[in-house]
Amino acid sequence: MSSSKGKIGIVGSGLIGQNWALIFASGGYEVHLYDRSKELVDNAIEKTLATIELYDTKGILRGPLTKDDQKKLINPAYTLKDCVEDCVHVQEAVYEDLSLKIDVFKQIDACINNDRTTIGSSTSCFLPSKFTDNLNYKHNCLVVHPVNPPYFVPLIEIVPAPWTSLDAALKVRNLLEQVGQKPINMTREIEGFAVNRIQYAILNEAYNLIRDDVISPEDIDTVMRDGLGMRYAFLGPWEVTHLNARNFREYAKQFFKGLHNVSMTFKEPPKMYEDHQTTNKIAESLEKRIPLDKVEERKKWRDERLMELSMLKRKAPQ
Amino acid sequence: MSSSKGKIGIVGSGLIGQNWALIFASGGYEVHLYDRSKELVDNAIEKTLATIELYDTKGILRGPLTKDDQKKLINPAYTLKDCVEDCVHVQEAVYEDLSLKIDVFKQIDACINNDRTTIGSSTSCFLPSKFTDNLNYKHNCLVVHPVNPPYFVPLIEIVPAPWTSLDAALKVRNLLEQVGQKPINMTREIEGFAVNRIQYAILNEAYNLIRDDVISPEDIDTVMRDGLGMRYAFLGPWEVTHLNARNFREYAKQFFKGLHNVSMTFKEPPKMYEDHQTTNKIAESLEKRIPLDKVEERKKWRDERLMELSMLKRKAPQ
Repeated sequence: MSSSKGKIGIVGSGLIGQNWALIFASGGYEVHLYDRSKELVDNAIEKTLATIELYDTKGILRGPLTKDDQKKLINPAYTLKDCVEDCVHVQEAVYEDLSLKIDVFKQIDACINNDRTTIGSSTSCFLPSKFTDNLNYKHNCLVVHPVNPPYFVPLIEIVPAPWTSLDAALKVRNLLEQVGQKPINMTREIEGFAVNRIQYAILNEAYNLIRDDVISPEDIDTVMRDGLGMRYAFLGPWEVTHLNARNFREYAKQFFKGLHNVSMTFKEPPKMYEDHQTTNKIAESLEKRIPLDKVEERKKWRDERLMELSMLKRKAPQ
Repeated sequence: MSSSKGKIGIVGSGLIGQNWALIFASGGYEVHLYDRSKELVDNAIEKTLATIELYDTKGILRGPLTKDDQKKLINPAYTLKDCVEDCVHVQEAVYEDLSLKIDVFKQIDACINNDRTTIGSSTSCFLPSKFTDNLNYKHNCLVVHPVNPPYFVPLIEIVPAPWTSLDAALKVRNLLEQVGQKPINMTREIEGFAVNRIQYAILNEAYNLIRDDVISPEDIDTVMRDGLGMRYAFLGPWEVTHLNARNFREYAKQFFKGLHNVSMTFKEPPKMYEDHQTTNKIAESLEKRIPLDKVEERKKWRDERLMELSMLKRKAPQ
C-alpha cells in the first residue's frame, strides 16, 4: 500500500528493527522491512502485525491511525534494493558488529537512488565515522540510536560523522519528532554518545563506592530506583536543579562550590574489567535478587513498567 | 494519645518536618512535633492534619491505619524536652546551617533521657561528625537524609559519624523500613553521601558536554527524562546492566573494557562556579522552558507526577 507520508526502509528484522517498523507505521509512514532471508522477513512481519494487534487490545497503540491502517503500512522487502529505493529514511538495525555495519552500509549505499534519503544506524557503540567513510552518500549517514524498548522509551540519539550534513541531521530529528520519539542532536561524534557517557559516569562512581566498601550493591541500586531515578523519569538533571532551589541560578550560587568540592573527592574511573573481586560482589548481589533463570521474566516486568510509565507521561506531557 | 509502637520526636516543623510526621504516623508511631514557637508548631500541626485529609480523599494515604487514627497520632510539643523524652527516635529537620545544627543537636542531647533513643539529622550536605561531636549520646547520632518529597520518594540515606554505633544505624534502618521508606546504609561518612555523589557525577559530565558544545542543555535533559531516567524509576544502575545483556556477568565481559575506554575520555570535574558562560547558557535554556514565574507551578507538577509514579510502584513492587 502506498502512503501519503513517504517510505521508510528498515534493514535488519530483529526486535529493534520490528520496533522501528511499529514506530514509523504509527506515524503514517510506509515501512519496508528487509533481512538476509525471506524466512526472517516473513517471521518479523508476522510478529510486528501481532504486536500491533496486542497493543491495540491493551489500549497502548501509538499514533492517530487505526490498527488496520497501521498494519497496511507494513511491508516485506525481499531485496535490499526494494527496501531502500525511494526512501525518505533508511534505518539499519543489524547486530553490533563493526565489520557487519561496514558491509551493510556499503550495500545500502549502492542501492540508494535518491540524494534526499537519510541513512541511520541503530548502533549504541560505534562512532559513525567508523562505518560510513568512502560511501557515495556519506553526507546522509549518521547514528540514530534508540533506547530499549523504543516504542515506550522515546529517546533517540542522533550522532553525525564529520562529513554528515547538518541538513541530514535536522531532517532526521524532524522525522523522529513527527512519529512521536524524542530525538536529541549531538553536534559531533564522541565516544559513548550522550546516553552511555551519562550512564558510565553513574556506574563509575557506583563501582568506586562499592569497591571502597562505602555502600552495598543493593543499596546503590536503591539510591537510584527509589530516589534520584524517580525524578529523572520526568525531569532532566538540569531541570531537577532548577526545581530543587528557588531556580537554577540560585542553585548555582548555593551549591556549585560544594558540588565541585565533593567532585574533587571522586576517584579515577575504575578498571572494572580487571577488578574481579568487586565485579563478583555486584554479580552475587544481583543474582540473589534476580537469579539467572529469572532474568527474562524480569525483563518483561521492566518492559511492562516502562509501558505504564510511558502512558503516565503521555497523559501529562511536559 | 499513646501508641503501641512508640514515640517519635520531630524537631523543626517546616515541609520536611511535616513529611516526617506524616510518614511516622502512617506507620503507627506517636509523633511529637516541635519548633521554636507555639505558633509555628500549631500551624504545622494544622497543615499536617489537612494533608492527611487531602491524601485520604485522593486515595494516596499510606499505611494500614485510617485517617482518623493517623491524625490522633500527631501531637504538638511546646518544649524540646516534651518532644524528645522517651522517644524511639528523634528526627531533626531544621534549616541547612551548620552552626544551627550544632546548636540544635546540643540542645537535643541535653534533653535525651534514654540511651536507646536514636537521633537523626535530615541534612543533605553536612557530615554527621561536623555536628555530633562532644555529645553524651553521640553514638546514637547519625544523618537520616530524605529525598524530596519523602512521602512519595521513599529513599533515605543513613550516614554514620565515626562514633555512631552499628546498632543505632541498623535500628534506624529497621524503623524506616517498618514505616515504608527505602533506607540505605553507608558504612562511613563521605562527602555528598551517595545521592549527591551520583547526582554530581551526572551533572559534571552533563556540564562538560554543554561547555564543549557537544549537546544543548535541553537535549541533555531529554537524554535523562525520555531515556535513561525512565529505567531508573524502576531499576538501579546495576540492575539495568543485568537486564541489558543476558545478565550482569555477560554485561561485564562484553562492555567493561569499552566502558573504561569511554570513561578515559571524561574530562576533569568542571569548575562550574567560575564558568559563567556555560552556567548562563543552561540558565537561559531552563528559563525558556520554565520561566521564573512558573517554577512553583512546575514543582507542583513534579510532585503530582512523583505521586502517580509512587502509586505505580506500589502496585507492582519489586
